[in-house]
Amino acid sequence: MRPLALHPDRLFPAEAGVRAIARKLYGEVAGLPIISPHGHTDPEWWATNASFGNATELLLHPDHYVFRMLYSQGVPLEALGIGNPAANPRESWRLFAQAYQLFRGTPSRMWLDWVFAESFGLDVQLSADTSDHYYDHITAELATNAFRPRALFERYNIEVIATTESPLDDLRHHKAIRESGWKGRVITAYRPDPVIDPEFEGFRDNLKTLSDLTGEDCFSWSGYLAAHRQRRAYFAAMGATSTDHGHSTARTADLSAPEAEALFRKVSAGSFTPDDAELFRAQMLSEMAGMSLEDGLVMQLHPGVYRNHNAQVFARFGRDKGADIPMPCDYVHALRPLLSKYGNDPRFSFIVFTLDETSYARELAPLAGHYPAMKLGPAWWFNDSPEGMRRFREMTTETAGFYNTVGFNDDTRAFLSIPARHDVARRMDCGWLAQLVAEHRMEEWEAAELAVDLSYNLAKRAYKL
Amino acid sequence: MRPLALHPDRLFPAEAGVRAIARKLYGEVAGLPIISPHGHTDPEWWATNASFGNATELLLHPDHYVFRMLYSQGVPLEALGIGNPAANPRESWRLFAQAYQLFRGTPSRMWLDWVFAESFGLDVQLSADTSDHYYDHITAELATNAFRPRALFERYNIEVIATTESPLDDLRHHKAIRESGWKGRVITAYRPDPVIDPEFEGFRDNLKTLSDLTGEDCFSWSGYLAAHRQRRAYFAAMGATSTDHGHSTARTADLSAPEAEALFRKVSAGSFTPDDAELFRAQMLSEMAGMSLEDGLVMQLHPGVYRNHNAQVFARFGRDKGADIPMPCDYVHALRPLLSKYGNDPRFSFIVFTLDETSYARELAPLAGHYPAMKLGPAWWFNDSPEGMRRFREMTTETAGFYNTVGFNDDTRAFLSIPARHDVARRMDCGWLAQLVAEHRMEEWEAAELAVDLSYNLAKRAYKL
Amino acid sequence: MRPLALHPDRLFPAEAGVRAIARKLYGEVAGLPIISPHGHTDPEWWATNASFGNATELLLHPDHYVFRMLYSQGVPLEALGIGNPAANPRESWRLFAQAYQLFRGTPSRMWLDWVFAESFGLDVQLSADTSDHYYDHITAELATNAFRPRALFERYNIEVIATTESPLDDLRHHKAIRESGWKGRVITAYRPDPVIDPEFEGFRDNLKTLSDLTGEDCFSWSGYLAAHRQRRAYFAAMGATSTDHGHSTARTADLSAPEAEALFRKVSAGSFTPDDAELFRAQMLSEMAGMSLEDGLVMQLHPGVYRNHNAQVFARFGRDKGADIPMPCDYVHALRPLLSKYGNDPRFSFIVFTLDETSYARELAPLAGHYPAMKLGPAWWFNDSPEGMRRFREMTTETAGFYNTVGFNDDTRAFLSIPARHDVARRMDCGWLAQLVAEHRMEEWEAAELAVDLSYNLAKRAYKL
Repeated sequence: MRPLALHPDRLFPAEAGVRAIARKLYGEVAGLPIISPHGHTDPEWWATNASFGNATELLLHPDHYVFRMLYSQGVPLEALGIGNPAANPRESWRLFAQAYQLFRGTPSRMWLDWVFAESFGLDVQLSADTSDHYYDHITAELATNAFRPRALFERYNIEVIATTESPLDDLRHHKAIRESGWKGRVITAYRPDPVIDPEFEGFRDNLKTLSDLTGEDCFSWSGYLAAHRQRRAYFAAMGATSTDHGHSTARTADLSAPEAEALFRKVSAGSFTPDDAELFRAQMLSEMAGMSLEDGLVMQLHPGVYRNHNAQVFARFGRDKGADIPMPCDYVHALRPLLSKYGNDPRFSFIVFTLDETSYARELAPLAGHYPAMKLGPAWWFNDSPEGMRRFREMTTETAGFYNTVGFNDDTRAFLSIPARHDVARRMDCGWLAQLVAEHRMEEWEAAELAVDLSYNLAKRAYKL
Repeated sequence: MRPLALHPDRLFPAEAGVRAIARKLYGEVAGLPIISPHGHTDPEWWATNASFGNATELLLHPDHYVFRMLYSQGVPLEALGIGNPAANPRESWRLFAQAYQLFRGTPSRMWLDWVFAESFGLDVQLSADTSDHYYDHITAELATNAFRPRALFERYNIEVIATTESPLDDLRHHKAIRESGWKGRVITAYRPDPVIDPEFEGFRDNLKTLSDLTGEDCFSWSGYLAAHRQRRAYFAAMGATSTDHGHSTARTADLSAPEAEALFRKVSAGSFTPDDAELFRAQMLSEMAGMSLEDGLVMQLHPGVYRNHNAQVFARFGRDKGADIPMPCDYVHALRPLLSKYGNDPRFSFIVFTLDETSYARELAPLAGHYPAMKLGPAWWFNDSPEGMRRFREMTTETAGFYNTVGFNDDTRAFLSIPARHDVARRMDCGWLAQLVAEHRMEEWEAAELAVDLSYNLAKRAYKL
Repeated sequence: MRPLALHPDRLFPAEAGVRAIARKLYGEVAGLPIISPHGHTDPEWWATNASFGNATELLLHPDHYVFRMLYSQGVPLEALGIGNPAANPRESWRLFAQAYQLFRGTPSRMWLDWVFAESFGLDVQLSADTSDHYYDHITAELATNAFRPRALFERYNIEVIATTESPLDDLRHHKAIRESGWKGRVITAYRPDPVIDPEFEGFRDNLKTLSDLTGEDCFSWSGYLAAHRQRRAYFAAMGATSTDHGHSTARTADLSAPEAEALFRKVSAGSFTPDDAELFRAQMLSEMAGMSLEDGLVMQLHPGVYRNHNAQVFARFGRDKGADIPMPCDYVHALRPLLSKYGNDPRFSFIVFTLDETSYARELAPLAGHYPAMKLGPAWWFNDSPEGMRRFREMTTETAGFYNTVGFNDDTRAFLSIPARHDVARRMDCGWLAQLVAEHRMEEWEAAELAVDLSYNLAKRAYKL
């Protein structure tokens, strides 16, 4: 059995002088509360405060980073219990444990070790030998009150966390949290893809449901827009400060009202081409931007993924099984209609993410470094890693500076990994700032201010939290 | 008030051994004269040798890097005095000063601090507190003889500087400089975009003006080409050793003479499609290459920018307001017609720049590492930064080596920043060479030779200076 | 004359702590045998074991990395003896020697110095002064038995080397090696481009030859496929464990059998469009994948090069003259047909390479980190350099980990450089692992295991050697 211990200097640059600066900067931010303005945790956890289940259910099943890697090396998803309730969770955990070396060098490994060591107090490395020890220890801990969702929320020093819901969601869990008297701040975010993307499964049914929910006729353009306004207002009442849009491209449009209405007639009638669908999504991004100027919700755009790339896995297991693959993504032409219309208004806050790092220095930093409305979201998803974070800073700072970025997003449904992820981001930012100081490109007092800004203030300000 | 002091080791790698080598290499090049083969300074400065105005006019208004960043954070351009002569320059300077933290980590910050400390002897950091001190001190200094254009030229140890003019320019300032008896070498460069790009504002008027200037009929293909030859010769007589071409793509063509003539008829008649315009620009690059073989002018290509991306800012303030955004840029197909025709001739010198760093390792270094005529221009514009320079070397050296590159270009209209920019380039190159030495990938004597080549010899040779 | 000495710490990171770890890791792998699963050496060397010729013939003529660089700086290929048997090899060598500074900072320089110092015991740097000394010494050594192909194979500790042959090759040299009693393991690989690419020179003649060789009617779809199966089986009998495919794009297809047959009729009849040719190549990749599932041959894909970009050089000197230029390459859409059909089968091993580094983090690592069949080939060709290797690890590890990569390929016809190339890869991997250890992202014992895996085990396993 190998020991497990998190080194206090982990992720800091190796050179002693730089490391000493990084350590000092990190000292200023390590204890700051967590601002988590974008993610996919389940509000039901905090509404009911029910215990989590066993180790496999909590740490393996919801984490497509983890089971994806096992699958890539030949472990069947069924054996891990994915789409297979008959699987023995202890046996699934063993498959994970005995393949733990696959994660060497990956962010999953850093997050998992943090969870094992910091949250569960484990002091030996996960392996075939320690698999049952892990499974039993974690599962036993999860049954204690200290591991209930609200207790973890407090222990993790979370100041605010945003979940993500569809306009069709009744937000009952958010309502329950607010009415419970518990002080934890859990807010929602407006993610209207299911009623905006004509190619979403059940799009027309969704329009029907939206009509029912709002009392608007969502098969008329004006009713549809009014329903969005109404749901946005309700989401805002449930704490939302932002919307989020997961489109396959960043395309936006600026159609005239009659053109937009004619296009809506086609897509809402269900008879449209793929080009119509793309144009409608594009137009709706601009409509959402316009509504953001009215109601103040911050707008997030997450484009550039080919969803469910693996046809066999999708047919057998459904969405979100680790088979979403990034694509090249144009921003310079795609965003121009929206930015030309709304980009000069500093009251509008438009946060753009990418999975295509080639656009950082070439397109995104120049756009964010010019348009008052636009800000850069952090290194996202596949790029949410130590190297990805370093590249983000190296490629955006020189053109966009630090103040056109918005701090860190954990963007996860793996609740226990949230502090680990923020810790990685804080360490990497402090390491980068320390390098700038060591190379005399910045004063140490400036880096100290920036460390706090990047860890806390920028997210709070950008997301109006 | 915070002190301002430029550290002698700034930009060198932090590791002590590497830094010691970098320091030694830099010692060999720090005092070399400046070769500035490409830029946008105004020859009138040296022709008239008139004093510059106040701090805001000199340092803020012409620098779109600087006001762009302020604009991106909500400062209105009008308040900075852009397109607004009524603005109080001292007040504009205050807006700049109180937002100076926005520039942390950017190259602008490094250049500005150099200008403040080295040129003006300021020893406190710019901030809201020091704004008036800065404004008064700089403005007072600018009124002295030591800050007149010729005095600064000499103080900055500039061996030669190239400006950029259109074929329609009469070069009166260049003529005046040459006739003045002053020994400073200020030369022009031939930038024919306004008479080559059919989509340039006033293209047909420009052809008319070119006809008047040259006595050629620039509405006939042969007259048009003859006019180019004549103006190129005149530019060469005014010192030009190069041409420069700012196209939105790198496309080149190799049409037959009748095809080219027919295409010219269309564009000169003003009835053409966007495709015609693109093909004409492409063909003209090859025509210019052919003329370079005749007259020996070095040819520069600067492609890949979406100009004036922000429609509102363009309508209100015009060109060059920080809203030019880079785009992906193909070279492998685009340059083939030109390179197939002229690329094997070592007498032809063709210097290609990019804003799309993805092409460095993939396309540009392989092309420059093969074709005798082609060389790589340095990290340009958005990439003219410490990190951009490092990426340039990391991604091009292994395939193109150092000798298919051409040293540094400052490419600026911010005259006072020129020494700062060359200093950053020299420091970064010395740091990169020092790393190669420290990793035993190169001998120190070789690095010392290269440091001088990269700082001085390569630019002089490539631009025939 | 300058001394030539390979520093024992070359390529290791400069920081003392990291370097010490790298040195230790490298100590574990420096002496491991060479696994060379992909390359372009000539099996005739080991079949006949004849001496190599002079220095120029062995080190300059076959190495397009080397003469390409000389050509890019104006040295005519004829003068180097390329396509010019009349050139004096000693004079050609002198041109190389006097331009040796061009290679500073390039991988060629590291490989060449290794060959000079380690294989030939030279102790002064190559230069105009030492040119004849080099030429005479190397040429004299080549005449000795110690420099015959089999002796070098043994001296270089090569456990297995794969060459690459077309289905039309009779593999006589491989047969001769196997029958000679010599114990060196030299195997072939199946590279069917000449009979798969309808745009290959002599495609229809090749089909005719394939018919003659196999007794199948290769102008019928079923006969053509049967011929492939037969030749694959023969290649496997001659040791092949893999196929290799050099297409200009990564496009794959999944046509129905009648569609595929109809398409084959067109291309085999010689009347097809470029789109037909592209679709046929795409379909054949999937056919090859299907056959790999039958016969177990590992499948390699090397896409993304514009071959023979320089029309003049191609017309005068033919293929492989350093004028192949990489292009952007899509994988996410291109590979989907093949991966959807065969990518979930862990028995299938599909190794994908790229020259477009932008796809590492964005597409290739996510694909390899999900599909059980797919693995990432190492940094290839233009990217086979210290910086290229570092970027490969930095951009793929976080998503694909280490175990979805396949170790190193030297991919060369420059036999003497093979140990140098493997040594560079081992050093760079040890340096990267050392950094992960020094930054406490991995334990040292894990890095030691990985160093052996990356240097030896992964290649052996992935290529079924």
